[in-house]
Amino acid sequence: MHFSINTYKYTLKRYSFLLLSSFLLLPTITIAQQSPDPVAEAATVQNNLNIIWTVIAACLVFFMQAGFTLVETGLTRAKNAVNIIMKNVMDISAGGIAFFLVGFGLMFGTNPSSWIGTDGFALIQIGDQREVWGYVFFFFQAVFAATAATIVSGAVAERTAFSGYLLFSIIITAFVYPIFGSWAWGSLFNGSGWLENLGFIDFAGSTVVHSIGGWAALAGALIVGPRMGKYKDGKPQPIQGHSLPLAALGIFILWLGWFGFNAGSTTTGDGSVAKIIVNTFLAGGAGALAAMTMSWVRKGKPDGAMTMNGVLAGLVGITAGCADLNPAGALAAGLCAGVILYLSSGFLERFVDDAVGAVSVHGVCGAWGTIAVALFHPNGLDLTLLGVQSLGVLVAFAWTFPLCYGLFSLINVFIPLRVNGELEEAGLDLHEHDAQAYPEFSFAKQTTS
Amino acid sequence: MHFSINTYKYTLKRYSFLLLSSFLLLPTITIAQQSPDPVAEAATVQNNLNIIWTVIAACLVFFMQAGFTLVETGLTRAKNAVNIIMKNVMDISAGGIAFFLVGFGLMFGTNPSSWIGTDGFALIQIGDQREVWGYVFFFFQAVFAATAATIVSGAVAERTAFSGYLLFSIIITAFVYPIFGSWAWGSLFNGSGWLENLGFIDFAGSTVVHSIGGWAALAGALIVGPRMGKYKDGKPQPIQGHSLPLAALGIFILWLGWFGFNAGSTTTGDGSVAKIIVNTFLAGGAGALAAMTMSWVRKGKPDGAMTMNGVLAGLVGITAGCADLNPAGALAAGLCAGVILYLSSGFLERFVDDAVGAVSVHGVCGAWGTIAVALFHPNGLDLTLLGVQSLGVLVAFAWTFPLCYGLFSLINVFIPLRVNGELEEAGLDLHEHDAQAYPEFSFAKQTTS
Amino acid sequence: MHFSINTYKYTLKRYSFLLLSSFLLLPTITIAQQSPDPVAEAATVQNNLNIIWTVIAACLVFFMQAGFTLVETGLTRAKNAVNIIMKNVMDISAGGIAFFLVGFGLMFGTNPSSWIGTDGFALIQIGDQREVWGYVFFFFQAVFAATAATIVSGAVAERTAFSGYLLFSIIITAFVYPIFGSWAWGSLFNGSGWLENLGFIDFAGSTVVHSIGGWAALAGALIVGPRMGKYKDGKPQPIQGHSLPLAALGIFILWLGWFGFNAGSTTTGDGSVAKIIVNTFLAGGAGALAAMTMSWVRKGKPDGAMTMNGVLAGLVGITAGCADLNPAGALAAGLCAGVILYLSSGFLERFVDDAVGAVSVHGVCGAWGTIAVALFHPNGLDLTLLGVQSLGVLVAFAWTFPLCYGLFSLINVFIPLRVNGELEEAGLDLHEHDAQAYPEFSFAKQTTS
Repeated sequence: MHFSINTYKYTLKRYSFLLLSSFLLLPTITIAQQSPDPVAEAATVQNNLNIIWTVIAACLVFFMQAGFTLVETGLTRAKNAVNIIMKNVMDISAGGIAFFLVGFGLMFGTNPSSWIGTDGFALIQIGDQREVWGYVFFFFQAVFAATAATIVSGAVAERTAFSGYLLFSIIITAFVYPIFGSWAWGSLFNGSGWLENLGFIDFAGSTVVHSIGGWAALAGALIVGPRMGKYKDGKPQPIQGHSLPLAALGIFILWLGWFGFNAGSTTTGDGSVAKIIVNTFLAGGAGALAAMTMSWVRKGKPDGAMTMNGVLAGLVGITAGCADLNPAGALAAGLCAGVILYLSSGFLERFVDDAVGAVSVHGVCGAWGTIAVALFHPNGLDLTLLGVQSLGVLVAFAWTFPLCYGLFSLINVFIPLRVNGELEEAGLDLHEHDAQAYPEFSFAKQTTS
Repeated sequence: MHFSINTYKYTLKRYSFLLLSSFLLLPTITIAQQSPDPVAEAATVQNNLNIIWTVIAACLVFFMQAGFTLVETGLTRAKNAVNIIMKNVMDISAGGIAFFLVGFGLMFGTNPSSWIGTDGFALIQIGDQREVWGYVFFFFQAVFAATAATIVSGAVAERTAFSGYLLFSIIITAFVYPIFGSWAWGSLFNGSGWLENLGFIDFAGSTVVHSIGGWAALAGALIVGPRMGKYKDGKPQPIQGHSLPLAALGIFILWLGWFGFNAGSTTTGDGSVAKIIVNTFLAGGAGALAAMTMSWVRKGKPDGAMTMNGVLAGLVGITAGCADLNPAGALAAGLCAGVILYLSSGFLERFVDDAVGAVSVHGVCGAWGTIAVALFHPNGLDLTLLGVQSLGVLVAFAWTFPLCYGLFSLINVFIPLRVNGELEEAGLDLHEHDAQAYPEFSFAKQTTS
Repeated sequence: MHFSINTYKYTLKRYSFLLLSSFLLLPTITIAQQSPDPVAEAATVQNNLNIIWTVIAACLVFFMQAGFTLVETGLTRAKNAVNIIMKNVMDISAGGIAFFLVGFGLMFGTNPSSWIGTDGFALIQIGDQREVWGYVFFFFQAVFAATAATIVSGAVAERTAFSGYLLFSIIITAFVYPIFGSWAWGSLFNGSGWLENLGFIDFAGSTVVHSIGGWAALAGALIVGPRMGKYKDGKPQPIQGHSLPLAALGIFILWLGWFGFNAGSTTTGDGSVAKIIVNTFLAGGAGALAAMTMSWVRKGKPDGAMTMNGVLAGLVGITAGCADLNPAGALAAGLCAGVILYLSSGFLERFVDDAVGAVSVHGVCGAWGTIAVALFHPNGLDLTLLGVQSLGVLVAFAWTFPLCYGLFSLINVFIPLRVNGELEEAGLDLHEHDAQAYPEFSFAKQTTS
């Protein structure tokens, strides 16, 4: 406990890191000693504000892990809830440590080739002077990386073994996501990425985070195959989630976290966050409105799960352009994302069993959001930008899908990813964790499909 | 992704809005070029801090939508959960867009007459210089507006059709709430409201937000009528909520959000938030303590749902006076609010079926909180202020209740608000959304009352 | 509602506390009038940033109360959920008021003897100049105090009467916790604590908050005795929690809140938070990883509840040293905490029925975290520090356990703490609150063990 209260008492004793703050808090004393530069003082305070804003935004993004857990759990069956929870807890626990040891350095380390970072592993090579921002930035980025991984867990839910998934989660967080990230977002320290150098705009990660996660999810869902009972005579059957209230809470938590995700990507505590916040607010609502309207028009009733996923579609759709588009553009991007979600999930469901619609929400709408930056840019349509954005979208797919398809296949050889049919029917919770999510409640229908 | 780290690398490239921040971060370079005014530098940083604080507070208020969703869902029956969730998601999605297009301008636009704002619609007329604060303030106010709307959804829960409700929700967010708001809180840009000019004190909206929502809820509950089984031989029957744990989580989320609601209303990141935070903390606890004690004394056992609503009553009761009252006054206001809640909900239940007690919590305790500013003011009781506060309370009722009663009646003609008895018995989720909140669980008792 | 927007309009009217902020926002006007000291201006802005950071961190800590509620509710049986919720709501409501009236003064008031604070009760003796920080600091500390109390409610869950618990909760918050706190963290105003003077390092409260709560929980669990059915032929039987998803959400909320708990303990908005945030992130993940691995290795399957408690163990284990240890040290402290949790909970379960593992998580891992500061200190192992840390750990136990054992025994004489067997079997919700957490759902198995 440290008291920063300059008129009270000064406990500067043993914490050397407090020296800077005490310097700031005792200016009238200090000024007599060394005449501080007042403009530099203000700049130091602004830098501190940037740190605090980034940390708080990162906390909001961290909380998104709870949102994903609830959405994925709520939209699947009760018998697999503990398994999904465990995957999400370990995505950020083991994944966070993997990103600390390997991923952060690959993504944001010194990048002379523009293709890969080469230092900053375990935050030990970043140097004292860069330590504070290195730490802050690592935390912000680590919770982003966990997001990319957790997208996969939703798509492959209800039939994928824990151990194989855990291995994949660590690999995507340590290697797959960071390497692409280094192309688009470059280095924190020195150097920049080749996509970034072309002028690729993906402010908060429609492509870098969401499409990467979405295409990895597609690969995973294809490798593990559909859940038992998903297809009857080749036609997809609905498998309802066991708790819409948990899923709804998850949606609100994700929306909340997205304000940190998008506006925190400024890493700057100033007016630059204002438009981003408004765009994020409007696009999420527009996505919900569009997806709800589509389901109402096409199926006669406003669908709950589709509306909730519509919020996410709108949010993914504004993530790339949140700092560039105007509010009207954000509304347009969000509305289109809701429509695209509806069409895409109906289409994809015929070929791939994606338990929570993650491929459409994150993969397809992530691509849409990246293109939308060029289409709705306030400066007008710039075909060069459209080309660069499209290139980024294609590169993300070309990097992620084949690589993850191969990775899942390889893991599958050593650690079978698919649990066997009997165990799947009984539920992964019993099989994998010897547990039940709700041991006291009775279940009305067979929860096996 | 932008790096604000001044000793690392400078990616100032294409984001023109980053120029100001770079100016702040590179003072030693800048100073040689244009000798910035150091006092202005500090003021710019303070302005940035105000922006960041307001944005974060607004995020907390945004999260209150999740809290309302959980409280309303938890305190009603499982068969209507999806419907309540959909209403809450659309309150902030469609309502947020309506407030963007219409409501914000009516409430905070240039207000020459002191009766209504006249510009700022869709944030397009606010001018470049005012853009940042216009955006920040819009976000903060949009989440307030959604709060007013969602209060209604709780009161009319379990028997109100989705489409009619949605229409009402958009109208209250676009017109009813903002017009009264312009009287009490005036313009962001130019001009002020007539109630404000009289000296009406409603710092964060006991009347503006909560009473308006509460009286609209009363009108709605009267128009749609009581739920089937609510009254037997004219006596109100308890209809228990299906999940107290969800409701409890909602209460904690609302309390958390209220710190942003009250202290964020300073829109200033400085010591002015300190007393407000303490008052908000103490009043919520005092409301819980008083409501629990009332139920314990009167019914022999401390009641869970009443205690939870007591937290909200205390919070509503300090919302108007949070910046004026001292902590002792906040304790008194909160304790009285808890007692008033208990008495009011017992009394009103005889005449109106309010599914979650929203009229007492928000309407009655909102009026109480507004009066309490005068009663417990640290400067002592000022009868003029008491008169102005009472006038504001009465005007809020006189504006909202008849107008919303008429609006609900009018909507009812075109889109019947009440679902028919058979559908109500089966649950709104099946009827309106073709869904179940918990499709796997079995239910012990008929959930039809 | 106040507008801080300097180019818009100035509503400086009646809120005298806004004068300071207006001073900051209107520097160009002010400078002509009184030539403000620009360095002092920057220091004032930094002080405001410290206030805002501390308030936001405190809001995160406040939210931990929701996390504890969910973990304790989810890990126990449905028939006792309302009771647990009520205890948690009142821990912060009544406990918050008790800390306001008594505890804060004892803990942080002027402390001439180094053994107890002597003023600051009800925040009325702190003086105008110290008011802002007094208020801010009170809020931050009040939510800490509630944490200490709520740890007890988990351990004694499912068989402890509400009224006796409530009395104990108020006493621990008003007296037991604050008095020890004054030894370790000293005074906000004047004077310091005797443990602090010895060089005891407990930055955010591994001992002050968690061990105190854990040893009080141990005393309570011993006094009320084990739940019916917990032991069969002297061997502990598992009693599963009724909702793992609620518990998992609680874990994520606690982890989120812990960033405020640890990094907010700087009460300074600057780079000093950076390392703390990274350490808190890594230690929580390491605790999960270690606890999961232990259960996997020892029982053949990765256990869900153990993994979740592993997150908390890791977080408790870094709380004391979060500002001193390096990330590698945080990883080590967290990994060890996960292992210690596994071993400790298996060992303690033989002697004491702790419904949620609170004694191991908070008591034992709190002691571990305090020792770990010396073991993993970046300056190398310092035996003097190790001695001081061990002394603090022992003093915390020697103060709390006998005192709370006596207090529980004394309360037990007047208000029997243990509900009788029949009522316990039926569930505390029916007996104590005439309520059911889930009145509509049907339960498959007897929920009586």
